[in-house]
Amino acid sequence: MRRLKRVAIVGVGLVGGSFASALRRAGAVATVVGVDRNPQALERALALGVIDTAAESVSEAATGADLVVIAVPVRAAAAVLHDMALALDPGAAVTDVGSTKEEVTRAARDELRGLFPRFVPGHPIAGREASGVDAATPDLFKGARVVLTPVAETAPDAIDLVRGCWEAAGARVAQLDAGTHDRIFAAVSHLPHLLSFALVSEIGARANASELFGFAAGGFRDFTRIAASSPEMWRDIALQNRAALLDELDRYSARLAVFRELVERGDGPALQRLMAEARASRQALNPGPRRGSSSE
Amino acid sequence: MRRLKRVAIVGVGLVGGSFASALRRAGAVATVVGVDRNPQALERALALGVIDTAAESVSEAATGADLVVIAVPVRAAAAVLHDMALALDPGAAVTDVGSTKEEVTRAARDELRGLFPRFVPGHPIAGREASGVDAATPDLFKGARVVLTPVAETAPDAIDLVRGCWEAAGARVAQLDAGTHDRIFAAVSHLPHLLSFALVSEIGARANASELFGFAAGGFRDFTRIAASSPEMWRDIALQNRAALLDELDRYSARLAVFRELVERGDGPALQRLMAEARASRQALNPGPRRGSSSE
Repeated sequence: MRRLKRVAIVGVGLVGGSFASALRRAGAVATVVGVDRNPQALERALALGVIDTAAESVSEAATGADLVVIAVPVRAAAAVLHDMALALDPGAAVTDVGSTKEEVTRAARDELRGLFPRFVPGHPIAGREASGVDAATPDLFKGARVVLTPVAETAPDAIDLVRGCWEAAGARVAQLDAGTHDRIFAAVSHLPHLLSFALVSEIGARANASELFGFAAGGFRDFTRIAASSPEMWRDIALQNRAALLDELDRYSARLAVFRELVERGDGPALQRLMAEARASRQALNPGPRRGSSSE
Repeated sequence: MRRLKRVAIVGVGLVGGSFASALRRAGAVATVVGVDRNPQALERALALGVIDTAAESVSEAATGADLVVIAVPVRAAAAVLHDMALALDPGAAVTDVGSTKEEVTRAARDELRGLFPRFVPGHPIAGREASGVDAATPDLFKGARVVLTPVAETAPDAIDLVRGCWEAAGARVAQLDAGTHDRIFAAVSHLPHLLSFALVSEIGARANASELFGFAAGGFRDFTRIAASSPEMWRDIALQNRAALLDELDRYSARLAVFRELVERGDGPALQRLMAEARASRQALNPGPRRGSSSE
């Protein structure tokens, strides 16, 4: 990959900051410019050396950039696309890091118009419970998967540039269409987050919540670790991927009703069979990193 | 605590073996005798030095024991109690390690008759994904909580003996009544296990299961770690604690329906509020050990 002159990071949080650090460490970029709604975050990013310069606006950051990385909560992406549209170099590539892809693709089409082929939707499958630029690390994406969801019009050279940057950050890049992406992640990420939030919500609302939590052991902690994720981020993901998430929730509820029925009528053999199948599926998952996630 | 002459371990698996090892290391017992349905497990326990001698039957193991520890799956406990009843020394204490307590208490009353006051129901809140005596370690209960659920008739000296042994193994001992115990663990352990099994069961049954699992990241792994637990053990726990578990499942489903409704009608503020409350509850949990559990 050619060395980039200028990369703009819109949103210098955990993911934006880590991507910037990884690109710098790989020698893939000469100058990183950052912009953030939050002036303290921007100052921190400068102080930590995560970015070289701070811009005052998205359009200022985007001007002259080879690559613009949108690393803001999914619901804020449309406004960022709007703000950069007129400043964007026609040869620049734009990407994002959001957990849902259909909605941002629609927004990019509306906002970037003629430059829409320069937009390469992306989703790095990485995160940690901590958030903010202070938690940023160039190793965040090492060995992580990144899914790109280009459409037919997306420019091949823009895809190559974005793919090259993620590979320079140590990630393995896959391609899916946006709808498939959103259905897959509704099942393996958005739904479990909702289920985990719901359990802690239910137990936490009881009068004897602290007694209950006092007896919670490793299994409960594992199951509910993701309920410590950002409410704003997960609210937005749930709403942006509403149709797929509701579909997954209904399929899950139907399966749960089967388990309920087996418990109620005391059907041990059928219950054991379903549990054994589930265990076999779970054991076939390769071990992978053991960590929570707030942005997968 | 006085040093015990003879402790009998019925079921030399992870929990029975670890308890034996911990008592031996603490110098709390002179001789540990083991018995197990599975001759290979018994041989392994002997070879590993977890037990001193192997008995051929529960009654042989119980004869002359100061303490008999029932460390078999909850559904097998009644038969073990039956088999030891006539062999038991009137001064001996009996305890178990099962995850449900009302059912085993009923069984002990029926089987032990006049010796029922010697039975101290117990539940160590510890486990790991591995099972079997090869995974046993004297450190398994270090810092773990153990709940004892004696009834009014239970002999105080039997309670003291069992409590002393768990403390010698490094555990912190609490007392609850059996019904309260079973309701608490339905909420913080049995329900999450069922929910986790149900998610992996649903996703694992699909035609594109391997694609879905291929994109599963840390959050999914955390959420589903407990679905790798023993199907036999969790079938039995679910059925033994059926009433409390169904009640918890219904409360959970009602809460999940609230989340569903908010997602469906796009009520971001209410969704965020529930998620933020859940996060605050989850964050208030002290960190605790990060491990799966097959026997909590």
